[in-house]
Amino acid sequence: MRILITNDDGIGAPGIEALWRAVRDLGEVTVVAPDSERSAVGHAITLADPLRVSDYAGPGGLIGHAVSGTPADCVKIAVRAILESPPDLVLSGINQGANLGTNVLYSGTVSAATEAAMLGLPAAAFSLADRHYRDFSAAAACARRLAVEIGRRGLPRGISLNVNIPPLPADSIRGTALTRQGRVRVLEWFDRRNDPRDRHYYWMVAERLEDEAEAGSAVDDAAVAAGFISVTPINFDLTDEAMLGTLGGWDLGPGTFSGGRNL
Amino acid sequence: MRILITNDDGIGAPGIEALWRAVRDLGEVTVVAPDSERSAVGHAITLADPLRVSDYAGPGGLIGHAVSGTPADCVKIAVRAILESPPDLVLSGINQGANLGTNVLYSGTVSAATEAAMLGLPAAAFSLADRHYRDFSAAAACARRLAVEIGRRGLPRGISLNVNIPPLPADSIRGTALTRQGRVRVLEWFDRRNDPRDRHYYWMVAERLEDEAEAGSAVDDAAVAAGFISVTPINFDLTDEAMLGTLGGWDLGPGTFSGGRNL
Repeated sequence: MRILITNDDGIGAPGIEALWRAVRDLGEVTVVAPDSERSAVGHAITLADPLRVSDYAGPGGLIGHAVSGTPADCVKIAVRAILESPPDLVLSGINQGANLGTNVLYSGTVSAATEAAMLGLPAAAFSLADRHYRDFSAAAACARRLAVEIGRRGLPRGISLNVNIPPLPADSIRGTALTRQGRVRVLEWFDRRNDPRDRHYYWMVAERLEDEAEAGSAVDDAAVAAGFISVTPINFDLTDEAMLGTLGGWDLGPGTFSGGRNL
Repeated sequence: MRILITNDDGIGAPGIEALWRAVRDLGEVTVVAPDSERSAVGHAITLADPLRVSDYAGPGGLIGHAVSGTPADCVKIAVRAILESPPDLVLSGINQGANLGTNVLYSGTVSAATEAAMLGLPAAAFSLADRHYRDFSAAAACARRLAVEIGRRGLPRGISLNVNIPPLPADSIRGTALTRQGRVRVLEWFDRRNDPRDRHYYWMVAERLEDEAEAGSAVDDAAVAAGFISVTPINFDLTDEAMLGTLGGWDLGPGTFSGGRNL
């Protein structure tokens, strides 16, 4: 099995080394990751600037390619320019911090997996659901198990898995929950300050709110909060089917077409 | 009606001025947009740097706030820090170039609308489906009509509309099609070059492929190619329901939880 590994915390982050260690004996593993942290870049790609690719050798033995771009860039350039043929599996992570609920839209980690799915490759993203918990061993074991399962069973074209691991020792994790993307509510505000030249600027501040409506249900954030690993299958089709029907009743002008397949 | 306008081509782009002109008499309109082009940033947000906000006055009379961030940043900072209360409607665009099929994942224009939807606000994104066609009048008329319709009927919480207008004079557009997100296939490669110091770098090159399987069907790209305005209702739930069932048969270890609502 040929495996491509990437992340959004950067090629020097401890999580990507933990992932590499967990799967390197499963086949031929190539690491292509951003040369520095690219968190919260979402599905950004780099069109207006050229990309640089440098050889990287980490202190723990990890060898790879450091890219001056986003996680989605890394997947594209790995598949189209670095690897001789497309990999059998793309793994992203292990991210330091959760990618749950609507936050997946901001996540470079998850977007790398989605980009792979858009290229027709099986993929999974792994996140350790705490910014400060430093023990990646349970997350690494989970990533290995899923890599083996995906290698055995495959994934339908266009589907990837978003996996979040609670910040607990392996023997305290209650199991694995198959989940839907939740709605994690976030309270955001902007902290306005003045710089030494008396020009103002803003820092974004975000605080996660507990959503009581979702507690105990099979959505990703509730599962992780309850001590389960969450596995959410995701695609990249944003179409809202229910709203398609509703729009049929709107006044969108002459020539509105809403039924059947043929235009 | 209080309307917030943003885009990803930057506050100085002709498309945002066309949008502003089209709706400014519908209510109180505020423009908050990136201070320069932020195309292909996807749903990126700025966490590691502070944001600057400057007053902007365009040559054509447009007054607004220029933000040193992404389209999603603009929506957040407008709603949380610039406006006294949340707007009734968020409009993004008019983008110079299509946002169709899987390309919506990369689109800052569409992500601004999605961000508004995540904040619980009705929103729509407008794109003129050609990078070089300079006549925004049909797109502007379409945006005005949809702004009025959304004002009258509302949108369900979490839903926004992705609207693409073919590059044609208004009287040559065949009508409006209610569409699904298509799969626009793109052929991508990397052009490797050497800089004057003999270090190599890569430019990403992408070329859209015609997808014969989708021609004539009610997906966004086929509709626009056939001369229709495409209106695709989108949400931000990436969950793949079909795959949830399949995963129930996988070996995910002890304690796998897949049924019912309660964990």
